[in-house]
Amino acid sequence: MASNPVNAISPSRKEDFPQWYQQVVRAADLAENSPVRGCMVIKPWGYAIWENMQRILDKMFKDTGHQNAYFPLFIPKSYIEKEAKHVDGFAKECAVVTHSRLVSDGKGGLIPGGELEEPLIVRPTSETIIGEVYSNWVQSYRDLPLLINQWANVVRWEMRTRIFLRTTEFLWQEGHTVHATSDEAVEETLRMLNVYEEFAQQSMAMPVIKGEKTEGERFPGAVNTYSIEAMMQDGKALQAGTSHFLGQNFAKSCNIRYLSQEGREEYAWTTSWGVSTRLVGGLIMTHSDDDGLVLPPRLAPVQVVILPVIPNEDKRAEVMEYCERLGESLRLLNWKGDPLRVQVDTRDMRGGDKVWGWIKKGVPVRLEIGPRDIANDSVFLGRRDRTPKDKKGISRNEFVQTLPALLDEIQSGLLQRAMDFRTSRTRELTSRDAFVDYFGSMNQESSETGFGLGFWAGNPDLEESIKKDFKVTVRCLPMEGSEDKGPCIFTGSPEGRRAVFAFAY
Amino acid sequence: MASNPVNAISPSRKEDFPQWYQQVVRAADLAENSPVRGCMVIKPWGYAIWENMQRILDKMFKDTGHQNAYFPLFIPKSYIEKEAKHVDGFAKECAVVTHSRLVSDGKGGLIPGGELEEPLIVRPTSETIIGEVYSNWVQSYRDLPLLINQWANVVRWEMRTRIFLRTTEFLWQEGHTVHATSDEAVEETLRMLNVYEEFAQQSMAMPVIKGEKTEGERFPGAVNTYSIEAMMQDGKALQAGTSHFLGQNFAKSCNIRYLSQEGREEYAWTTSWGVSTRLVGGLIMTHSDDDGLVLPPRLAPVQVVILPVIPNEDKRAEVMEYCERLGESLRLLNWKGDPLRVQVDTRDMRGGDKVWGWIKKGVPVRLEIGPRDIANDSVFLGRRDRTPKDKKGISRNEFVQTLPALLDEIQSGLLQRAMDFRTSRTRELTSRDAFVDYFGSMNQESSETGFGLGFWAGNPDLEESIKKDFKVTVRCLPMEGSEDKGPCIFTGSPEGRRAVFAFAY
Repeated sequence: MASNPVNAISPSRKEDFPQWYQQVVRAADLAENSPVRGCMVIKPWGYAIWENMQRILDKMFKDTGHQNAYFPLFIPKSYIEKEAKHVDGFAKECAVVTHSRLVSDGKGGLIPGGELEEPLIVRPTSETIIGEVYSNWVQSYRDLPLLINQWANVVRWEMRTRIFLRTTEFLWQEGHTVHATSDEAVEETLRMLNVYEEFAQQSMAMPVIKGEKTEGERFPGAVNTYSIEAMMQDGKALQAGTSHFLGQNFAKSCNIRYLSQEGREEYAWTTSWGVSTRLVGGLIMTHSDDDGLVLPPRLAPVQVVILPVIPNEDKRAEVMEYCERLGESLRLLNWKGDPLRVQVDTRDMRGGDKVWGWIKKGVPVRLEIGPRDIANDSVFLGRRDRTPKDKKGISRNEFVQTLPALLDEIQSGLLQRAMDFRTSRTRELTSRDAFVDYFGSMNQESSETGFGLGFWAGNPDLEESIKKDFKVTVRCLPMEGSEDKGPCIFTGSPEGRRAVFAFAY
Repeated sequence: MASNPVNAISPSRKEDFPQWYQQVVRAADLAENSPVRGCMVIKPWGYAIWENMQRILDKMFKDTGHQNAYFPLFIPKSYIEKEAKHVDGFAKECAVVTHSRLVSDGKGGLIPGGELEEPLIVRPTSETIIGEVYSNWVQSYRDLPLLINQWANVVRWEMRTRIFLRTTEFLWQEGHTVHATSDEAVEETLRMLNVYEEFAQQSMAMPVIKGEKTEGERFPGAVNTYSIEAMMQDGKALQAGTSHFLGQNFAKSCNIRYLSQEGREEYAWTTSWGVSTRLVGGLIMTHSDDDGLVLPPRLAPVQVVILPVIPNEDKRAEVMEYCERLGESLRLLNWKGDPLRVQVDTRDMRGGDKVWGWIKKGVPVRLEIGPRDIANDSVFLGRRDRTPKDKKGISRNEFVQTLPALLDEIQSGLLQRAMDFRTSRTRELTSRDAFVDYFGSMNQESSETGFGLGFWAGNPDLEESIKKDFKVTVRCLPMEGSEDKGPCIFTGSPEGRRAVFAFAY
């Protein structure tokens, strides 16, 4: 519930979740639609969140032995055609470069000129161009494993776009690795899935279910796709990251071969894995409330904001100086290995507007400091994970000493709250009737949906028909309990595996 | 001179500078040409140098009040047409997206489909699209200054490409700022030019001349362009960064207006500034020698490499463990605010190949450590800024204690060496005859060219004719001594300003 109707996000989550999402994005000044169809502008506050995500993920990739590199934006049409399922998956939605300049149309305007011999595709993902390059880099078993990541922009010509969640251009990282054996490639695929899970839970405070995608939901060209699936506050699933075991499919289409230790020429085994700016959308829909954005401290561009309260001009200099000094001393503290990110808001504007501005931007800790607080050597503390009215004065000393613990508490509290929410919106389904009961009564457009858990032994056709009838998809077959078998709730086959069903973004 | 003909880069700098450059890039495994025309693949070692550049520059931008954001890759054709000089400058070399999918050609192949109503240009630079977005963001004087930077890829369809120096796609940062007054915009333009100068000199150890470009060399659409110009080891100039005062040109074409404090509607004043992966090329050509790449410690992905020397298998475990422990303790040291970057090379290969591999990669400090060194508690130290044979044993203790000072010495020594080189290749020119004497006798293709300094009061036509006759251009009118006036060496006009003449990349 919104704490203050005047300042609240309207509509509320309950009233209209998709509109609420757009309004949170706007109120926190995260991003906006650009004049270019389907492309977004990521504004400084949204980009700073992405930078924090990048920094943490990049360290995790390097700690697991990966190096960064950069490959071309463009992919020759002939490359993308090499893997049959891959081109099927991406040909329908790609930006095609056909010309290399603009020339006069003879009427004062410009038209495309310098037609290319072969059209170029703006990368929707880079398996084919990187595979082509790797075919030269990989010669012998000594060159393996090859563990590389790229931070880049990609383009998929989406018909329906939604800011951060599905845009024509988006930012992401894509890992592309090559291995000597199938086992090593599978191990890498799961290692990176675990990295994503750890990042989502520990940094984003977003609980996720790790699992295998069904055949129908695999990445085009993959042997097996794994994902992390998160529940948003409307109960829908968001696929938040994927890791693909590509088998030898791309090694064969791109000719990635190596001379084994035994002197045999072998095709290599490859993987790819990625997360994108979609994570920012997931972050928003996991924690934010009817007052605006809520950020976990790990990812907040500002963790503590200091708001000078100036009752009259006589006091301005004193209060400002005190706040600046407090800011400086807080910046010397470390939390989770990084210096604290602290901002003193010296703007000349109404105090209430200022406070509400930072609430909407999701800053975890707010300090209001006026002459009386200074006299008492205390601070007036507000927490974004509590209601805005729940503020308290505490001694400055105590605040400084307990700040790291407070950030820990906020970080883990957000994770716990999201896990509790997911539990409250998840039901075990033991039969087709129970499935129909559960999902049949839900309005997909409402904020009141949820996950269903049940055994599944269906095929892509059955999955397609369920999707058609109920708009529900198998989100994944969770790693946890993946050994269990039970009767499929649709076919009755005893070979069913545990599955998560949900509406999805 | 190469230290060892077997391991040297061939050809040498003197024999064939452009080929030497390509061979250093290859020997250090920095980058390679991709299968996509004019686009390069930046390999891990090259990308790690770029990441170090990015990290340092990004902090400098943030310390001067800028925030990062991200704008679309695509620019509608109509936007780029808005500023007449700007479109003239970029229309001849841009990638044009005309279609949004691939469709069957009915013969088993794919052809472009879904033709766009308006072609999109892949950004060659973002003034027009960012200007369009800014026209909404800027409403009142309270919104100014607007100080934003973007890290991005850009595309210019170059006919002749050379790795890092001129490629169809390259990585860069582009700052775009908006100000209320002309003075503030000029101040920003020069502030960022100073940031570039400081970065080039302090981090790259690359001396640069800061100056104003002549009218003929201005950025298309700018009122004034400033650059930093560096001398490469063949005596040619490399424009290493530019900062543009755009006046009200883009504010007018993009309609960026604000309500002033006095209540008047005014056009704003804008700037833009950028450096790119071209800097990596400049770094290579400033310091490297006939043994391969030479890296200043500030930018080296590995500052100290430890090479275990294993005379026989009995000693392997002991030596490896000692080296790993030394590596760990060195990583606890800080230099210039960052933890030391140390690598222990445990690969199983011939010692000589290993040492030469790291020489070619430009690592500043090499330690060779075998059983005898361990017994003596000493290390065998090689410096990349000295000849490979100049190695010495010193006590481990002394090495650890003096390592930061050693890195300082290498960093400042490289800068000093490059400054001395530039001095030795620069001549004061006091007349047209002296100019003809100096440049007329130089072979532009040789490694023996240099800078000329002289007074200039010419116009774009004169500059064009000098370029045609001598291939020489005015690189810049230096900030240092910019108040001095003297007789132009071509026209005799007493209004000449100091100018730098050179062949250029």
